[in-house]
Amino acid sequence: MAQPTDSTVNKTAHAFERASLESLLIRRFFFAPAFEIYGGVKGLYDYGPPGSSLQANILDTWRKHFIIEEEMLELDTTIMTLSDVLKTSGHVDKFTDWMVKDSKTNEVYRADHLVEGVLEARLKGDKEARGVQEVQEVEDPTQKKKKKKVKSVAVKLEDDVVAEYESILAKIDNYTGAELGQLIREHKIVAPETGNEVTEPVEFNLMFDSSIGPTGQIKGYLRPETAQGHFVNFNRLLDFNNGRVPFASAQIGRSFRNEISPRSGLLRVREFTMAEIEHFVDPLDKSHERFESVKDIMLRLLPKDVQAAGKTDISELTVGEAVSSGMVDNETLGFFIARIHLFLTKIGINPQRLRFRQHMANEMAHYAADCWDAEIETSYGWIECVGCADRSAYDLTVHSVKTGNKLVVRQPLKEPRIVDKIVANIDKKAFGPMFKREAKAIEEAILSLSDECLKKAMDELNTKQCANGQKYEVPVSVLQIKPTQIKEMVREFVPNVIEPSFGIGRILYSLLEHSYWARADDVNRAVLSLPPTVAPIKCLIVPLSSNAEFKPLVTKVSNKLRALGVASRVDDSNASIGKRYARNDELGTPFGVTLDFASVSKGTMTLRERDTTLQLIGSIDEVVQVVYELCRGDLTWDEARQRLPAYSGEQDASS
Amino acid sequence: MAQPTDSTVNKTAHAFERASLESLLIRRFFFAPAFEIYGGVKGLYDYGPPGSSLQANILDTWRKHFIIEEEMLELDTTIMTLSDVLKTSGHVDKFTDWMVKDSKTNEVYRADHLVEGVLEARLKGDKEARGVQEVQEVEDPTQKKKKKKVKSVAVKLEDDVVAEYESILAKIDNYTGAELGQLIREHKIVAPETGNEVTEPVEFNLMFDSSIGPTGQIKGYLRPETAQGHFVNFNRLLDFNNGRVPFASAQIGRSFRNEISPRSGLLRVREFTMAEIEHFVDPLDKSHERFESVKDIMLRLLPKDVQAAGKTDISELTVGEAVSSGMVDNETLGFFIARIHLFLTKIGINPQRLRFRQHMANEMAHYAADCWDAEIETSYGWIECVGCADRSAYDLTVHSVKTGNKLVVRQPLKEPRIVDKIVANIDKKAFGPMFKREAKAIEEAILSLSDECLKKAMDELNTKQCANGQKYEVPVSVLQIKPTQIKEMVREFVPNVIEPSFGIGRILYSLLEHSYWARADDVNRAVLSLPPTVAPIKCLIVPLSSNAEFKPLVTKVSNKLRALGVASRVDDSNASIGKRYARNDELGTPFGVTLDFASVSKGTMTLRERDTTLQLIGSIDEVVQVVYELCRGDLTWDEARQRLPAYSGEQDASS
Repeated sequence: MAQPTDSTVNKTAHAFERASLESLLIRRFFFAPAFEIYGGVKGLYDYGPPGSSLQANILDTWRKHFIIEEEMLELDTTIMTLSDVLKTSGHVDKFTDWMVKDSKTNEVYRADHLVEGVLEARLKGDKEARGVQEVQEVEDPTQKKKKKKVKSVAVKLEDDVVAEYESILAKIDNYTGAELGQLIREHKIVAPETGNEVTEPVEFNLMFDSSIGPTGQIKGYLRPETAQGHFVNFNRLLDFNNGRVPFASAQIGRSFRNEISPRSGLLRVREFTMAEIEHFVDPLDKSHERFESVKDIMLRLLPKDVQAAGKTDISELTVGEAVSSGMVDNETLGFFIARIHLFLTKIGINPQRLRFRQHMANEMAHYAADCWDAEIETSYGWIECVGCADRSAYDLTVHSVKTGNKLVVRQPLKEPRIVDKIVANIDKKAFGPMFKREAKAIEEAILSLSDECLKKAMDELNTKQCANGQKYEVPVSVLQIKPTQIKEMVREFVPNVIEPSFGIGRILYSLLEHSYWARADDVNRAVLSLPPTVAPIKCLIVPLSSNAEFKPLVTKVSNKLRALGVASRVDDSNASIGKRYARNDELGTPFGVTLDFASVSKGTMTLRERDTTLQLIGSIDEVVQVVYELCRGDLTWDEARQRLPAYSGEQDASS
Repeated sequence: MAQPTDSTVNKTAHAFERASLESLLIRRFFFAPAFEIYGGVKGLYDYGPPGSSLQANILDTWRKHFIIEEEMLELDTTIMTLSDVLKTSGHVDKFTDWMVKDSKTNEVYRADHLVEGVLEARLKGDKEARGVQEVQEVEDPTQKKKKKKVKSVAVKLEDDVVAEYESILAKIDNYTGAELGQLIREHKIVAPETGNEVTEPVEFNLMFDSSIGPTGQIKGYLRPETAQGHFVNFNRLLDFNNGRVPFASAQIGRSFRNEISPRSGLLRVREFTMAEIEHFVDPLDKSHERFESVKDIMLRLLPKDVQAAGKTDISELTVGEAVSSGMVDNETLGFFIARIHLFLTKIGINPQRLRFRQHMANEMAHYAADCWDAEIETSYGWIECVGCADRSAYDLTVHSVKTGNKLVVRQPLKEPRIVDKIVANIDKKAFGPMFKREAKAIEEAILSLSDECLKKAMDELNTKQCANGQKYEVPVSVLQIKPTQIKEMVREFVPNVIEPSFGIGRILYSLLEHSYWARADDVNRAVLSLPPTVAPIKCLIVPLSSNAEFKPLVTKVSNKLRALGVASRVDDSNASIGKRYARNDELGTPFGVTLDFASVSKGTMTLRERDTTLQLIGSIDEVVQVVYELCRGDLTWDEARQRLPAYSGEQDASS
């Protein structure tokens, strides 16, 4: 996940609502800073009961939507990763951010964030000096300490300076360390707290490191993505799929990035849950068997040429049109973009605040050939929540070169073909006696060398080869490596990888923003309109009072709902019914049932819907059945209103 | 999880079967060594598609059985843990094993494992010398490198030496470092590879460490258990539960232990998935509301007094009897032991190979007051798979003392009572002017001090107090801390914690051992008899051939099963039907349906059951419905045989 990139969105527009929402989320323990009683650590959050359930429900929906429906191969690989693997993937060298320090206090800043913060503050000061009103930005309630803010002083800037600052901010993600250093000097940017100069930007690797075993000799990192766990297991996955492509593997798990200075609550954290798919496909055929089933899905797309022209105009197209016009490169990429759209809207993301933005060439990750991000609009701007990248053959190729293991697909050819190859010829008569007992193992090792390795070894007089954990020198007298024409019966290729990669925390937070509102604009009557599919609790059971008379009925209804797999909770506290419903509106509980004296005497129960606060009434069994169907999505609320009569006997505090 | 402790079980009894099973598990990618193409790292394993699905199904069953059914509060806390938290919990100082090094090569051994290995080898040599036959132990196929084995040489020992060795082995888990050092010297134990002496045992902390943030100043560890994440969030959890106990929080997640020398495959690994429950309960009332519902469950118990007498005789008792006789301390502990038993047998653990063993006083973890382990018998002996410990008030107390935050439950008293307390009296007239603007914050900080802190501060002339991040000295002239008699309206107490803690990988591996067998003792016809609830795939769909004629039917059946939530797979490869079924017997797939020419002409489908290989026949819709009910557990196979007629038209290779 790169950082949010669209700086053109007004970040303060939703400031007031965000503070109310975040206070609700922490108060009701959707999440809270980790180790809060120890003062907390920036960028680490714990999910409490409603947050954990919401996350579990999102992941369950994800598993059904992707893994089960598309028969993907699920994986669960280790978080602790051998450093060699991440050296090969490029993360040890390139997974870095630029960091500067206050030259006197050693306080650390992420260089691009520092430049961004200072220039934004100057622009704000300029607007104040020009008399432009701005909405006040509000403290982040998730941080106990006061947020260090760059003070804006009302100083008017020249028009060309304003234009230059805006141009820098628009490109802030794309500067090198040297360029950031240049900007800092040129624009006299200093540490905002102290006014001290800052050091030249240096690279800081974002991986947490550790060592494995008691001797400290095996270096490991906490994975920054789950993807490498798929790639190093490619041969086993291919074998499990009977040697055929295309197929996809999928994994849900924790990943880690040691951010220099985390901010924006759940959007930029040091530990997060990802869900990643690696779809392995023939590079010569990126069609998709099920493309037909999604081709009419309408998408909101922001292609790279529009961005290059400095615009953000959305193209509304079906995915079929986007692929046939060439805007989206191929069916497989288009298929996943459409499936991502379906998933996000299914869990409750507002489709009008969702877009797919194509990466510009200069912002692509080091391994990507093409990439579309699902971006969701929040009060922080447009946030990248899902990356959908074509990683080409990059990862499999580098791991193959590094380890000498072939990571390829073999397909029988209908007609044999003549090709130029580099081939290892072993003089078996001389080779055997030279290596004796080890000859077989060394021969096998040589024959399994990748093309890349053979190419490297071609001009050397002696080939060095490992076998059985020993190193051997094989002289040119018994092993010749040279270009040869051979007749191929089998086509051998490294598959390309299309990777949809989901940041679950970002999706979850965006969903909470999209779901949040307050009745009559009263922040004390907040509602989370989460769809029943993902709502932490589906149904609240409210007895009129904690009177013992209601206990058997509460147990009965609770057991019935549980047997149907509907997650429910009882609130038998002394608060009024209205108050109890209001507390559960805050948790996003879509339905509530009330047990009162009529339940005892007549066996009826009322059913309340969260968003409308409308109430229906029916027999306990009828109502339970309706709740079950509503939660499964087999019944809409309007249909439920056809099945059960309206009820208006009780005063609901929220009506 | 402590290591397996019962050394009396014959570890080699199942040796042959284990090698076949483990080869199957790796070949079919239930799991494999992580980073295998890079040579792997001991103690780190990746789960492939069937292993991941099996694990996901076990966890799903766990979540329903515990979290949903008992309305626990789910949590999802960070893996990266602030070192202060683990310092307080005792892990920084006490979570260690004893390690020795080869004095010349620096090769590392876990001290107790070294002593154990050498003495076992000597006993084996003695048996050989006495002419006793032993089953040959087989290589561990999960380790690529050859296992370092202590050679046994046929040397006869004196009878008293044999007795002494056996006595040491029986107590091998309970020695201190100094005692292990003593044993090493006394019995002339040397490094088995080189014959060199080994160093004195030193403590090695089993936590992986790292640092958080770019300055390296915040030390962190990867959590060794999920429990601390519950304790530090106690106040938020209690608040979420409306201030009442008992309640339980639950968490499923990855934990880490940097084992000195991992062994025994999935049983002792460096990264593993746990599921932990922390049940918070009034120390004066450990009864359980739902104890009645489990009291007749029959358990196999191994209490501590039996072990103290050197025996392993199992008491078969109902949990009701075990609690009323005092063998199990209280209802809550008994309730969880019974629920653990139900869970394990539900997923397929053989109840005859399951027992609950009470910890002896000297093996209890540093925080535990009482503990019963669910142990499962495997080819490695009896393995601790679930710990069920009474952690008393240990954790909440130490975190409270350390942070100064009260972690208590407050209950209104029916009648007020007079108690002796240590109370902080502030002379407000002098206090306010002394601290001015900070007075309120300092006063609040003082009033929230725990009893422990107050006790410490009692005899000091000046109290040091933090407020708003500053330190203040408060002189005795304005603050007196002294014992006082006060009238209490509210009872305040630190709840006790009962903790069932599940090692999911150990349960999963044990389940695979219990499920594994071979038809007609032929290892090439292996079967995993996993219950449908947890089987990775529930139903195999087998078209007679890859003939296009069958395609639409395959899609139809596949869609029908998916709509019912039955995980299915199609095998349309060219292998024979019998061969395809056999391949899925290895994966534990309980049911298979075959589509043939009769399916096309008459709309029938056959249904095969994995363990019996019996086949039934019916219309496609009938068979789909039966499979659905079988997988939900609503129908037994015997009942299915009443619903559908038997089929014997096709030759099944496995019949």
